[in-house]
Amino acid sequence: MADTSTDPLPSWRDGDAKRAVLDGIDAVADPASPDFVPETDRIATFDNDGTLWCERPIIAQAAFLMQRWATMAEADPSMRATDPYRLAYEGQTDEFSAAFAHGPAIVAGLSEAYAGATPDEVDDAVRTFIDGFRHARFGCLLTDLAFVPMVELFHLLEDRGFTTYVASAGGRDFLRVFAEDLYGVPRHRVIGTSTELGWTDGRLVRGDVRVDPVDEGPGKPVHIYERTGVLPAFAAGNANGDVEMLESAAVSLLLRHDDDRREYAYDESAERARAGAAEHGWIVASMRDDFERVFAHDD
Amino acid sequence: MADTSTDPLPSWRDGDAKRAVLDGIDAVADPASPDFVPETDRIATFDNDGTLWCERPIIAQAAFLMQRWATMAEADPSMRATDPYRLAYEGQTDEFSAAFAHGPAIVAGLSEAYAGATPDEVDDAVRTFIDGFRHARFGCLLTDLAFVPMVELFHLLEDRGFTTYVASAGGRDFLRVFAEDLYGVPRHRVIGTSTELGWTDGRLVRGDVRVDPVDEGPGKPVHIYERTGVLPAFAAGNANGDVEMLESAAVSLLLRHDDDRREYAYDESAERARAGAAEHGWIVASMRDDFERVFAHDD
Repeated sequence: MADTSTDPLPSWRDGDAKRAVLDGIDAVADPASPDFVPETDRIATFDNDGTLWCERPIIAQAAFLMQRWATMAEADPSMRATDPYRLAYEGQTDEFSAAFAHGPAIVAGLSEAYAGATPDEVDDAVRTFIDGFRHARFGCLLTDLAFVPMVELFHLLEDRGFTTYVASAGGRDFLRVFAEDLYGVPRHRVIGTSTELGWTDGRLVRGDVRVDPVDEGPGKPVHIYERTGVLPAFAAGNANGDVEMLESAAVSLLLRHDDDRREYAYDESAERARAGAAEHGWIVASMRDDFERVFAHDD
Repeated sequence: MADTSTDPLPSWRDGDAKRAVLDGIDAVADPASPDFVPETDRIATFDNDGTLWCERPIIAQAAFLMQRWATMAEADPSMRATDPYRLAYEGQTDEFSAAFAHGPAIVAGLSEAYAGATPDEVDDAVRTFIDGFRHARFGCLLTDLAFVPMVELFHLLEDRGFTTYVASAGGRDFLRVFAEDLYGVPRHRVIGTSTELGWTDGRLVRGDVRVDPVDEGPGKPVHIYERTGVLPAFAAGNANGDVEMLESAAVSLLLRHDDDRREYAYDESAERARAGAAEHGWIVASMRDDFERVFAHDD
């Protein structure tokens, strides 16, 4: 990691966004500020896919689901005739990704695909997947796809007395397996959409449906409040599904994907978020202009 | 508080229960133990009503609901003809309590009674209620009804690296208002049954129904896992609704209400729990025999 002794955000370029982020943190963490939030209530919530790590060309959990369905269709040829199983079996990543571009759809798929399993069994499957997966373009492990400046910001917030949470539209239980390694976030600070769970014969067992509300859109501040009892002092997101979380926060940051050289450039699914930023004055950070580097491998 | 420098549980009498509790803590907190649980996963979950504080002659939240419905019936005479509003309006505590002896029924009632309110408005109503209520028999504030030996145990667990949670079948949001004052537990470590919440016009608003699963019976380990990502290393309860949580824990403690002099003596709603303790070898503590004192006012 870069040296943070003189600059608290060394992977951010100097500019409006960095200055606004540092000012925003001071506004809620400085006891002399009129917007001061005491430490017990001072939480920061970050979306995951596209905010803390790369979501292209396919959201990691969608790839995990694709692999699971491919295996199931291998064993059961009758599945191969029907989408989405056919797409998974044939390895059609782009079409599969388009059909499952949203966390809630993936969680619904994973609920079905792992119905009756114990959480521990799924944790093991996630670990095996993570160890074996390589990113199509960068060739790196999924766990090397974190955005260095965002993780740096996450840790700066912790240094300033914020309790950090990841709040993902995707599956809470998928992310819990590696959030500690990737972001230093323990399992209890991962918020996300979940599969119904039951207690049967003295153990936890997964059901076959997703739990509502999903942790996306208006469900995001609801999930955050349910977990923590407060709304965020600082929130960061990148897409339409983050709008309500950003509305609910004292300081809000929208990350823009505009760097097709080091990452990807796309505005789809961020139209409402960009309009919200203009309306409410949220901080907007450009990956191209405001990040000194994006991934650890950019060093 | 009593001196804990030489005895970690000074409000507990020496005996089998106290010894088993201390041995149980060592079993999961001592790195040399075969049952050692690392600190990140070492959580303790305590039921609230009847385990951490007194639930007789009426569960506090039921009294809160009774007061709300009495006020509503004051304003709307047509409500006075129908139970449970009539019971509330007429101040029939015993009958009302019998009808609402369980947290889930109370949360359903509170969902209806405060539909459309914001969480902050209900927090304020809870504070006003708590400040004004006196216990029918002891004359003390609700916040003086904590069981001193159980709170002492709670804090000992924290000293031994456990993260403590309250896991109540009753309403999470009711308890969050005063759990910090009463037990030193911040809002995010209160688990309980909840009212449906929505995000409307830029703010959280309460719905009119309870969220399932309720945090009781098989729903208790589910809620605990959803919140924390693990199952308890230590759990304490007093009633049938705690059985599955006690099953899910590495070390389990059942509190028996058998002291009609200092508290109350009753076995109703604890029949399955007592059978479970006998079957699984849970620690059973008698309030009469194992507690040196029950309330702070016993000093």
